[in-house]
Amino acid sequence: MATPATTPTPPYYAVIFTSVRHDGDSGYGEAARQMLELASKQPGFLGFETARQEIGISVSYWSTPEAIQAWKENAAHRRVQNRAGEWYTAFRVRICRVEREYGF
Amino acid sequence: MATPATTPTPPYYAVIFTSVRHDGDSGYGEAARQMLELASKQPGFLGFETARQEIGISVSYWSTPEAIQAWKENAAHRRVQNRAGEWYTAFRVRICRVEREYGF
Repeated sequence: MATPATTPTPPYYAVIFTSVRHDGDSGYGEAARQMLELASKQPGFLGFETARQEIGISVSYWSTPEAIQAWKENAAHRRVQNRAGEWYTAFRVRICRVEREYGF
Repeated sequence: MATPATTPTPPYYAVIFTSVRHDGDSGYGEAARQMLELASKQPGFLGFETARQEIGISVSYWSTPEAIQAWKENAAHRRVQNRAGEWYTAFRVRICRVEREYGF
């Protein structure tokens, strides 16, 4: 995670997950680690970036909307989605189509 | 910045800026503060989220691609874009169309 994700030529897709955490871990760290490991094995997974200060921003990149939907419906992922209220005081999920990319 | 940005019903647009900083400030903090102040006055600006740990992720939200282009071409913004090499060892800019959004 020490560099920006390396992604293919657009178009591809991004899920921007923005959240504010409750105090205390409540199993969050371990669940986050497991979910990244599992997501990275999903078909269509392209990369992941994350940072947290006052708010947390995690962006996962995917080849198609279908790949995002399949990950959303993954059984283990659904179990942690159901724990969102334990971990977050607020969150937003934004599903995006990446149209252009540049940088160095 | 203590809560996720409040954005309208999609579609709208997002610019995901992912970066790795050089050590030292080199005027970065002040430039970042000024740019957020200026961006938030631009037509079509909808909101902003940022966090930095190993990498920094800043997401700005915009009503249209034209609003993003106008901000990119803003003269003061261009001056700081030209200083990217002083501040960043690597960065990626991804222009996205936000298609769906949910959360609590």
